[in-house]
This record gives sequence, structure tokens and C-alpha cells, in this order.
Amino acid sequence: MTVTLSDIKEAAQRIKPYAHRTPVLTNESLNQQVGARVFMKCENFQKVGAFKFRGASNAVWSLTDEEAARGVVTHSSGNHAQALALAAKMRGIPAYIVMPSNAPQVKKNAVAGYGGQITFCEPTLEARESTMERIRLDTRATVVHPYDNERVIAGQGTAALELVKDIPSLDVIIAPVGGGGLLSGTSIAATETKKGIRVIAAEPEKADDAFRSLQAGEIIPSINPKTVADGLLTSLGTLTFPIIQKRVEQIVTVSEAGIIEAMKFVWERAKIIIEPSAATVIAVLWEKKIDLSGLEVGVILSGGNVDLEKLPWQK
Amino acid sequence: MTVTLSDIKEAAQRIKPYAHRTPVLTNESLNQQVGARVFMKCENFQKVGAFKFRGASNAVWSLTDEEAARGVVTHSSGNHAQALALAAKMRGIPAYIVMPSNAPQVKKNAVAGYGGQITFCEPTLEARESTMERIRLDTRATVVHPYDNERVIAGQGTAALELVKDIPSLDVIIAPVGGGGLLSGTSIAATETKKGIRVIAAEPEKADDAFRSLQAGEIIPSINPKTVADGLLTSLGTLTFPIIQKRVEQIVTVSEAGIIEAMKFVWERAKIIIEPSAATVIAVLWEKKIDLSGLEVGVILSGGNVDLEKLPWQK
Repeated sequence: MTVTLSDIKEAAQRIKPYAHRTPVLTNESLNQQVGARVFMKCENFQKVGAFKFRGASNAVWSLTDEEAARGVVTHSSGNHAQALALAAKMRGIPAYIVMPSNAPQVKKNAVAGYGGQITFCEPTLEARESTMERIRLDTRATVVHPYDNERVIAGQGTAALELVKDIPSLDVIIAPVGGGGLLSGTSIAATETKKGIRVIAAEPEKADDAFRSLQAGEIIPSINPKTVADGLLTSLGTLTFPIIQKRVEQIVTVSEAGIIEAMKFVWERAKIIIEPSAATVIAVLWEKKIDLSGLEVGVILSGGNVDLEKLPWQK
Repeated sequence: MTVTLSDIKEAAQRIKPYAHRTPVLTNESLNQQVGARVFMKCENFQKVGAFKFRGASNAVWSLTDEEAARGVVTHSSGNHAQALALAAKMRGIPAYIVMPSNAPQVKKNAVAGYGGQITFCEPTLEARESTMERIRLDTRATVVHPYDNERVIAGQGTAALELVKDIPSLDVIIAPVGGGGLLSGTSIAATETKKGIRVIAAEPEKADDAFRSLQAGEIIPSINPKTVADGLLTSLGTLTFPIIQKRVEQIVTVSEAGIIEAMKFVWERAKIIIEPSAATVIAVLWEKKIDLSGLEVGVILSGGNVDLEKLPWQK
């Protein structure tokens, strides 16, 4: 079973009443700087400040009433937890969120603010999964994995569907890759609606497991990566990997300095707040490791959740 | 001689090829926080990052070819200098900018970057004016005052013209007031296109000369004001004051803390970068000194030029 363009189109209809149709912005300074025409799909303006709300909403609103009544469950310390909590709240059903005890207070508050029922556990993958399984057995809630889930992938693909519709002349789309949910959905939506469009992924050099996985032909897990792009720490999944193998032209790795410079440039010139994970797609253009000069390049700015007290360019 | 709706409509046509038609954004968290429906006219996305480009462009493109060939001149250390330099560059004519020698390096660089020919002078109003007059006599360039100029006022009014067109149901428009160019243009555009619309101004408590001028019935100069809203330090002009007296319902003063809290909230929730001067209009809603609950409120976010190394909420 995989995800089709129909799944993405159905997801778009399903989430339409709940998710924002985010704008596509351009910036002349950025175009001049990178030598291409850049179209920024602003998922930083999405509900909860990230594309994750698309996949979470699609998963929540795909449930039957009976399934929905039992709620949804996931383990996450990031944007997916907030997105699932809000989507569940909108449907009026419980969201059980397993978070590591060492998650930042601001993220705990955000999930609680959206009505998520948090269970804390030890900060290990094993503890997170066993805690989630216990809750699932207790509540019979539906597990919504942050990326290795068809409905989530279909939901994430709706951003690229909108982008290609708004800018039909695009030559290339660049999306960041962590677990691969956004990249999978993007690659299906783009290549199935526009023949010949190139799909490229952006990944931090310091968390280059997806790059190495494509080279090796098998999933290489991400082990304790350290990068400013804290939304891109996870490994590819069994659903996302083959989609990416099939549809993504290449994964371009970017340096920490490139991510931070590109992020600051977008803040300064385009006047929008993007998080480091989103800046990776700009960094691909910024660092010019591949030649995209003169092309029309759509980029998915994945989110804008940043701690404003502590910016990466400040000492 | 004053400015009419026709002048603003002509300005809109004149600057259309050069200025952005900026978007109007909404944010559900903000609406809930302030208890009104807020429509943000994003002049932070305007060229040079501020509404000033509208007035400067209108002034530059209103010149005859003969006038234009001699260039334009102004004294300014802020956004107007950049705006005039860029507008002149687009028309291919010289822009002579008088700046105080103690202006921040980043502003000097920005003006030079847009091709402005900078003359430095002592940091006094007298030195600025005498230096400008000398240049005017030498070059026969046209003086473009930052706000007390009909063409500038008409240009600034085009932002509100667009806003009222995009959101015809608005009950109220709020604009910040410094010298009053934006406020004058806004008040003419709004009241002449929509009967009964209320125009309210936002001013820092610590630079409340416009508030006091309206109360006194005469222009009270602004003397060494200290506020984080560094775009609002100037005094009203002889053109702007009577327009504001006639058309603005009231000026609401806002605290420094209110400006900073409102600014940070917009960054965090709406994911857009606004400068403190722009945040004053949100602070009016935030501090709830006047009751706008349940209303549809258009706000002009005047600009987004901020030093990202030094944010007002950081110690």
C-alpha cells in the first residue's frame, strides 16, 4: 500500500475547513542573492506554525465516528504533538501525547494549551514506544505516527499540491527531509501533477542519514544527530523510504552555517519567521552546491516555531 | 492645498509598477487575545521593508523628466532615506541623502546599497537642514520631505486604499503616528471611500506629541523623545496636522511594555517580523484602553526593519 495523488486530493478536501491555504511569497533580494526565481510556500503560517497540521488533520478527520470517539495517540516532542492535539481538539476527541520528561517547557505548554493529554516518560525511544503502547491498549485510541503513516503523508502532500496549482511553471520543488513525511507527500503531489518537475530534498550535513540511506539503498538510522535544524533529527520510515527512492532526484546536504545564514537572510529581507529546519531549503540555493540558476524553484518553508529568546546567530 | 482621494487614486496607479500590493493577513490567536477581528496590512513586506516606499515612489514618479533629471534630495536617517534612494534608482536619477554622522552603520549601508549619494552632517536639525539646502542649491534637486509633502501623503494613503478594497467590511482602521504622513493618507483614503469608518492613531506614551497637539489644537513639537518605536520620533507637520484634526477620531497612546509584548506576540503567532513602530497599532488592541471588542479592525503594520542582533525583549 502506498499513497496516490487521489489520496492527496481527498486529503485536501478533507482538511480544507480546518487548515490554512498558506500564501506563496517571493522576494527580489533573495532571487538576486541565489540567482533563481524562488517561490516560498509559507507553512510557517499554517496552524500551529508548521505543515504538520495538514497530516495530523487528515489522519484525525479520516477516522470513523466510532474510531474517533476513542481518540488518537502519538509520541512526539515536536510540532507533530501540537498538530495532533489541535486537530483532535477541533474534532472534539481526546489526543494522548507521550512526551519525554526532558522536553522543553515551552513545548509541553503548547501541547497542553491545545488540550493534549500528556503522559511523560523516560527520554528513550523504547520508553516512548512502550508508554504509547500501554495507552493504546488502555484507551483503544488510534496511533498517528508523525510520518510513517499513509494519511499523514497524504496530508503533508497537500502543501505541494497547492504550490504547483498556484505556480504551474515551477521547474523544481525543494522540501526538507527528516522522517520523510513531508518529502514523500511533496514528491507524489509534484511529480503526479507536473510531468518533468524535479524534486530535491534538503538535509543538514550533520543529520545526513537520508542522504546516506539513498546512497546505500537501505534505511540508515539517524543516531544522535546534532544540528540547529531540530525538526530533522528522525530517520526515514518503511513507508517514506521507497517513495523517496522512486521520486526524489537527489538529497542535498547543507552546512550549519549555511542554514543559519539563509534563515537570517529570510528574516531580514522577506520579514517572515522561519525555523532552522525550514531554512535548509533556502540553504540549498544559498550554498549553490547544485546549479539551479535561472530556474523557477518552489520551496516548502516547513515551519516557524523558534524560541525568540535565543536565536541561532546570537552568541 | 490639501490631498484628495483623487490624488491617492492617481498615486496608486503611478506606483503600481514599482511597489508591492502587500497582503492582508489574519491570525486567530491574535483575534482571541484582543477580542476583535484584526486585518493586518503588511507594509513590512513592502519594498525597503516599510510603507515609506509608497510616498517616495509617488514623489519621484510625479516629477517631470526635466525635474527628475536633477534628482531628489532629503534629510533622513530612517526608512524614508532608503525608500527615496530606491525609488530614485528605479527611475535612474540621483538621490542626495543628508544623514547625521552618528546614524547607525547599518542604515548608512542600506542607503548606499540602494545607490543613494550620502552627505554626512552634524547630528542637529539645523545642520541637516542647512546641508540639504546647500545641496539643493548646487544641484537644483527636488526636496522630498518625509511626510509634510502632498505627494508623499498621497502615496502613503495607497496602503489604506488597498486595505479598504480588500476588506470592505472594516469598522475601524488604526495607523501609527510620527510625522503624520501615513496617518494623513490613511485617514483620507479610509473616510472618503467608506462612510462612517473610524480612524484611530497609535502613538507611544513616551512620544505623545501628536496626542498633545490634538488636545491643544496646535502643533506641539516632539522634544528628544525616548521610545523603542524609533520610527515615531518626529513632530506633526503643517500639512499633516489639519488633516489629522479633521479626520482622525482619536490618538491612543501605548506603553513601551505594551509595544514590546504586542510585537513579540505577532512574531510568535503570526510569524511575521514587525518593527516596534508597527507594533503600536497592535498595542492599542492589546492594552484595551478603548473598547473595540467584536469589531473588524484594519491595522497598518508600517514596517519590519529591526536589528536582529538586538531584540527589545532581550536583556
